[in-house]
Formats: sequence, C-alpha cells, structure tokens
Amino acid sequence: MAVIRCKAAVAWEFNQPLVIEEVEVAPPQEKEIRIKIVATGVCQSDLYFLSKCSNQTAFPVVFGHEAAGVVESIGPGVTEFQPGDTVIPLFMPQCRECRLCKSPKTNLCVNGFERSRISCRGRKLLQFLGTSSFSEFTVVKEMSVAKIDPAAPLDRVCLIGCAICTGYGAAVNTAKVEAGSSCAVFGLGAVGLAAVMGCKAAGASRIIAIDINPDKFEKAKVLGATDVVNPNDHSRPIQQLLQEMTGGGVDFSFECIGNVEVMRSALESCAPGWGVSVIAGWTDMENFSAPPIHLMTGRKWTGTLFGGFKGKDGVAQMVKAYLDRKLMVDEFITHNLRLEQINEAVELMKNILYH
Amino acid sequence: MAVIRCKAAVAWEFNQPLVIEEVEVAPPQEKEIRIKIVATGVCQSDLYFLSKCSNQTAFPVVFGHEAAGVVESIGPGVTEFQPGDTVIPLFMPQCRECRLCKSPKTNLCVNGFERSRISCRGRKLLQFLGTSSFSEFTVVKEMSVAKIDPAAPLDRVCLIGCAICTGYGAAVNTAKVEAGSSCAVFGLGAVGLAAVMGCKAAGASRIIAIDINPDKFEKAKVLGATDVVNPNDHSRPIQQLLQEMTGGGVDFSFECIGNVEVMRSALESCAPGWGVSVIAGWTDMENFSAPPIHLMTGRKWTGTLFGGFKGKDGVAQMVKAYLDRKLMVDEFITHNLRLEQINEAVELMKNILYH
Ligand SMILES: NC(=O)c1ccc[n+]([C@@H]2O[C@H](COP(=O)([O-])OP(=O)(O)OC[C@H]3O[C@@H](n4cnc5c(N)ncnc54)[C@H](O)[C@@H]3O)[C@@H](O)[C@H]2O)c1
Ligand SMILES: NC(=O)c1ccc[n+]([C@@H]2O[C@H](COP(=O)([O-])OP(=O)(O)OC[C@H]3O[C@@H](n4cnc5c(N)ncnc54)[C@H](O)[C@@H]3O)[C@@H](O)[C@H]2O)c1
Ligand SMILES: [Zn+2]
Ligand SMILES: [Zn+2]
Ligand SMILES: [Zn+2]
Ligand SMILES: [Zn+2]
Repeated sequence: MAVIRCKAAVAWEFNQPLVIEEVEVAPPQEKEIRIKIVATGVCQSDLYFLSKCSNQTAFPVVFGHEAAGVVESIGPGVTEFQPGDTVIPLFMPQCRECRLCKSPKTNLCVNGFERSRISCRGRKLLQFLGTSSFSEFTVVKEMSVAKIDPAAPLDRVCLIGCAICTGYGAAVNTAKVEAGSSCAVFGLGAVGLAAVMGCKAAGASRIIAIDINPDKFEKAKVLGATDVVNPNDHSRPIQQLLQEMTGGGVDFSFECIGNVEVMRSALESCAPGWGVSVIAGWTDMENFSAPPIHLMTGRKWTGTLFGGFKGKDGVAQMVKAYLDRKLMVDEFITHNLRLEQINEAVELMKNILYH
Repeated sequence: MAVIRCKAAVAWEFNQPLVIEEVEVAPPQEKEIRIKIVATGVCQSDLYFLSKCSNQTAFPVVFGHEAAGVVESIGPGVTEFQPGDTVIPLFMPQCRECRLCKSPKTNLCVNGFERSRISCRGRKLLQFLGTSSFSEFTVVKEMSVAKIDPAAPLDRVCLIGCAICTGYGAAVNTAKVEAGSSCAVFGLGAVGLAAVMGCKAAGASRIIAIDINPDKFEKAKVLGATDVVNPNDHSRPIQQLLQEMTGGGVDFSFECIGNVEVMRSALESCAPGWGVSVIAGWTDMENFSAPPIHLMTGRKWTGTLFGGFKGKDGVAQMVKAYLDRKLMVDEFITHNLRLEQINEAVELMKNILYH
C-alpha cells in the first residue's frame, strides 16, 4: 500500500489559524484502518485545545474528531472492516477486551491513541484524540472505528461522532432521565440541544433549556424544550429561578458549556434528595467547587464522556435510530463548508461562544 | 401536665465548657412528646457547632442528638406513642406526609425544628437539631421520634440515633455497595466504623480502612476491614496508594471526617467509570473542589445525612437488627460517663480529633 498525499488543516501552533497543507498519510499498520473522511463537524473541544488550553496541547496537530467516511484500506489483522465500509471514527476506543470495555457500567477503555500516521514536509503531525478528521484521509485504530449503515448520509451522521451522542447519552445513559421528570439543560450548542432531545426521548415532562444567546431557543423547542430561559433576563440567580419554576428543583440537570460556575449552578438547580447533575461541558483550566451540604442532602454529581455510549455499539445504534426517524440530526446542521474554509468554521464557533 | 425541673448541660456561649444547670422542660404541646433521656452519645457534630463553626450556631443551646429514652408524657393529638414507650429521638423528622417523605429516594423531610420547650432562669434555650439530648428530659415532635423494641438496652442503642445509622446507611442505602466490590473508608470514628460494618454487610470483598490514628485499626478489623492504612506511613498521596492497591481504584469510597481535602482524595481513590464517593463527614466552613474530568470519567459524587435512613422506619429496623445479632453496637462504646461529666466527654472527642 502506498502513502496517500492529500489535503489537511494543520494546526502548527497554539491559537494560530489552521493551515491547509499537503500531508502524507501512511498506510494503515497492524489493526489500523485508513479512512477517506467525507464529512466532519467542528466541535468546541477542537477549539478548546487549539486556542484556550495552552498548557496541555502539543503541536503540530491535526484536529477534528466528529466525522464520517469510507474505509480506503485496512492494515494487517483487521477483521471487522473492508475497504468501502461506511464508518464513523471514534475518539473513545472500544477494544471489547479490557476490564472497562467488559463492564456494562462505563464506556471508557484502557486503550489510548498515542501514534500518528500523518506527516507534513517530513515532520510528524499529532493526531488529535487519535482521529484527525480535518484531513481528507486519516488512519485510525480498528478499535476506534464504528461501522454504520451504508444508507446513512455521511454529511449528516458525522455529528453522531461526537456532539449528538454526548448530549443525548448524557440524558439517557449517564443521568438515566426518568419518564415524567423535570430537566434543565445549560447551554444550547450541539451538545446541549442533543441533551434536550435525550430528555424528551426519555419521557421527561418538563425540559427547561437555558442559554445566554436567545437565538438558540427556537431550535431547542423543536428538539423538545418545554421552557426556555435566558439567565440574563433575570436578576436572581438561575438556580433560584429554576427552584421556583419547579417547586424545589429539577430532577436532572446538564452542564453543556464547560464553565465551572455554571456547573455549580446546575448542581444547585437540582432537587435535594435525588437531583442528578451531569457535567458534559469540558474544561481543565479550573476546578468546580461546592459546599458539602449540596451533596449531603442527596444530590448526585457526575459527568459524561461521549454520553456514556460504548463507541462501536452506540454509534451504530444511533445511526440506525436516525435512519428509522427516531433521532433528529438534520436540525443540528447550521452551515456547510469545504475543508479550505476550516478557519471560517472556527470563527463561526468562536462567535457562538462569545456571542 | 406540669413543667419538669431537671438537669441539662447548657452551652451558653461558643467554645466555652458546657454548664450543668437546672432547666425547665415545658409540657409537650400539640403533637409533641416529652422524653426522659436514658442515654446519649456525643457526636462530632455537637462539637462542631459548639466550638468550630462560630458563624452559624446560635446560643444558648442544649446540644445532644444521639440518644434513647422513655416517653414521659404526650401532647394533644399524639397517636403513635404512649407514656412508657422506649424511643430514639430523631434529628431528621419523618412526617410521612410531605413530598420528600413520600419519595422512596430520600430521607429528607420538608419539616424543620424551630421551637424549644427548654428554658433556664427564664431564658429560652435552643434545641439543637430539635432534639437536645444533653438534658434529663426533652420535648420532641412526634414526627421526630422512633419507637423501638422495649427489649433494647438504651445505653447501647442510643448510638443508632446518629453515628451507626449514618455510616452503615452511607454504605447500604446511599452508595448501595455491591457484593464483591472494593471499598475505602476515610476516618474511623463511629461514623467510619459503621461504614466499614455497612460495607461488610453489603458483601464487599475488600474494605480498606484509613485513619491517621492507628489506634482505630483494631476495631476497624473487628467490624470488617480487610486492610488498614495510615496515610502518614506513606510518602505518596493516599489516592495513589489506593489506586495501586486495587489496580485502578475502589468501587466505593466514604469520607467520614469532614475535611474537604480528604473528600477530594476519596473521590480520586474511586475507579474511573463507575466509582461512587459518598460524603458523610460534615463541614460548612469550606467548599470541596475537583477538576471536572474526575466526574466526566464516570465517577459519581454524593453524600448522606443519617445514612439515607428514613428516621422512624430505619431506626426501628436497625434496633431490631441489633437485637437479632445482625448489627454490632457494643463495639462502638468506648466510655460511659454521667451527665455531670459531659465536659470530659467533649474533651475525649477533641482528643480523638486532634490526636
Ligand atoms: N463530554 C464530552 O464527551 C464532550 C463532547 C463534546 C463536547 N464537549 C464539550 O461540551 C461543551 C459544549 O460543546 P458545544 O459544541 O455544544 O458548544 P457550543 O459552544 O456550541 O455551545 C455552548 C452554548 O453555551 C452557551 N453559553 C455560554 N455561556 C453560558 C452561560 N453562562 N449560561 C448559559 N449558556 C451559556 C453559548 O451561548 C452556547 O450556545 C464544550 O465544553 C465541549 O468541549 C464535551
Ligand atoms: N452525614 C451525617 O448525617 C453525619 C452524622 C453524624 C456525624 N457526621 C459527621 O461525620 C464526621 C465523623 O464523625 P465521627 O463522630 O465519626 O468523628 P470522629 O472525630 O470520631 O472520627 C473522625 C476520625 O477521622 C480521623 N481523621 C482525621 N483526619 C484524618 C485524615 N486527614 N485522614 C484520615 N483520617 C483522619 C480521626 O483520627 C478520627 O478517627 C464528622 O464530620 C461529623 O460531624 C455526619
Ligand atoms: Zn467533540
Ligand atoms: Zn477497552
Ligand atoms: Zn451526630
Ligand atoms: Zn416529611
């Protein structure tokens, strides 16, 4: 098999525009798969590591981890895939063999993603989360690829590769939202909107969608929100407002922003006695904090990576749910851009965040 | 019914010795019960509000909330009790009627305890947690009293009124410890020792008991600890040691000290993916904190008041379990003192803490 020369968006340095470069994608090695990326989403996590979290990210790197594509070639020992299969690469592997994969309680896997098959002008480029979908081709481990129904439109279901599973699963897998319950979702980006949809699918009777950007409310209602709240419209703290709206607090709350202050508000919005608060938003720059009594009164605080879905199994199911019209995906798409326009996509994400 | 004049240990001021005074205990009013206290434990929570948490406690107050006694008289409208019944007063009411009492998910009750029937030299004394068992007689609401088997030795089962239910219930009710699981208990006072016993009753196969005071280890082993660890014997952090001892972290951990640093260690000792950490120790002087990733990787953080036991039901069951020799209580008793020696008891508690 030959090296593929193709285009990729390379992040050479922290907080600098991505650069479209010709890169070399090596053939897949033992138990690896080379994928032609057909469509990729851009996720706040890409932006976070590109331009916010200076202390952790190593450069140069190819970002992108929410994608769909077609298997171009397979390395030795690959048994699950054939060239031509439609797939979604996974930023959380599912090896099916480790003690974590074997537990029904978690979607973590002991395996990591330290290796790269992408280089540019003789220099190795790191693969972000083992995926690197901001490239026309990429190489991913077999354990980090989900096979999906070939009927799926890849420019839509790519979003199942991160945001949609994360938010939806935060509700149905991590929180295990109950029928008839009340829920509050903080932040209505793709993750938060998917959480709203998950709460609705779980049968919640009250779904309060919260964002400081009121442009998000229309879509939130389409996905199932029964109430929308802009914290900036109220002088009292959002947690107090929610306590009042629900007569004592919501049963489930979701932080889908990555802000430790909001994490605390989301916890405090929960009903004492049983409220469950799930952290889906990501930050490693600050710690959350709260007084012990908030938990001693019986609230539960937890979090989610990829919505608790075991990657291979979960992604295939979610794609099927979409094809069966049980899951909305089209509603999440706001723009369609070409790889060359990647910096425009990054700017669009920034504008969402700093609206 | 007449006012009863009897002895009580009065806390007139913050961080001052208690004073044995003759007090007046008014007759029980509507749905109240006057109890002759036969035995009381001293709990770190009494000490905390007496001498640590200056900003919250109101004085003068009669402390004590872990006791057993006999009903002396009942107020109008009391239906569940007769004079002569043996009882344990509850610092968490169970009214059986509010939305919290009706939920199987919590032992909280919307009712509080604002009222006092005890006075001294014309001055009203507050009743700590509605109980005030550092008095020969006290008046408690009917909803805050558990009837127990008259065969129970009151000088033993008084401990079921707080520490034993708290620790035991933290394991069996709040954490729902699973058979075959691994557990870590931080702090081996009465609460922690009871947590060890609860883990054992739930069938945990590994119970690691942790204290900076090695004198606690012998009793911990009697109650079920399989391993004992003094963090001061090790140079690496306790959470790292526990991760190593268990090949990735314990399934359940319990903080039974009231130290926010240890709360964080207890969380970090848990296995990613499913570890549950329960806060039983009390402090309201500081907040706990942790990086979001600790929860995003699937750990759950929660806490407990009175071990999640609904007071009336739980206490009666636990006393029965003791009489049926299914629960150890005698092992928790270290000293027997008279009411007049209450300051000695307080000093003993301080020495335990600042050993
Ligand atoms: N847990 C996981 O596995 C996982 C997966 C994907 C993304 N993430 C994280 O989830 C978070 C959300 O991702 P996204 O792509 O949906 O982000 P996004 O930027 O599209 O959406 C965030 C939303 O939050 C709103 N917001 C910002 N501050 C707010 C505040 N104080 N109160 C209310 N609303 C506020 C913004 O207006 C925006 O609509 C990010 O932190 C991302 O890194 C986590
Ligand atoms: N949640 C509830 O409903 C409830 C009920 C009762 C008591 N409490 C609280 O539970 C806590 C424990 O109560 P107790 O009566 O068992 O207390 P205790 O003082 O008898 O026991 C605490 C133990 O922790 C040990 N310890 C202190 N610092 C330590 C450290 N850094 N690492 C390891 N061990 C350490 C001490 O040596 C001692 O043995 C207190 O905070 C009390 O207020 C809570
Ligand atoms: Zn993502
Ligand atoms: Zn695995
Ligand atoms: Zn107590
Ligand atoms: Zn009640």
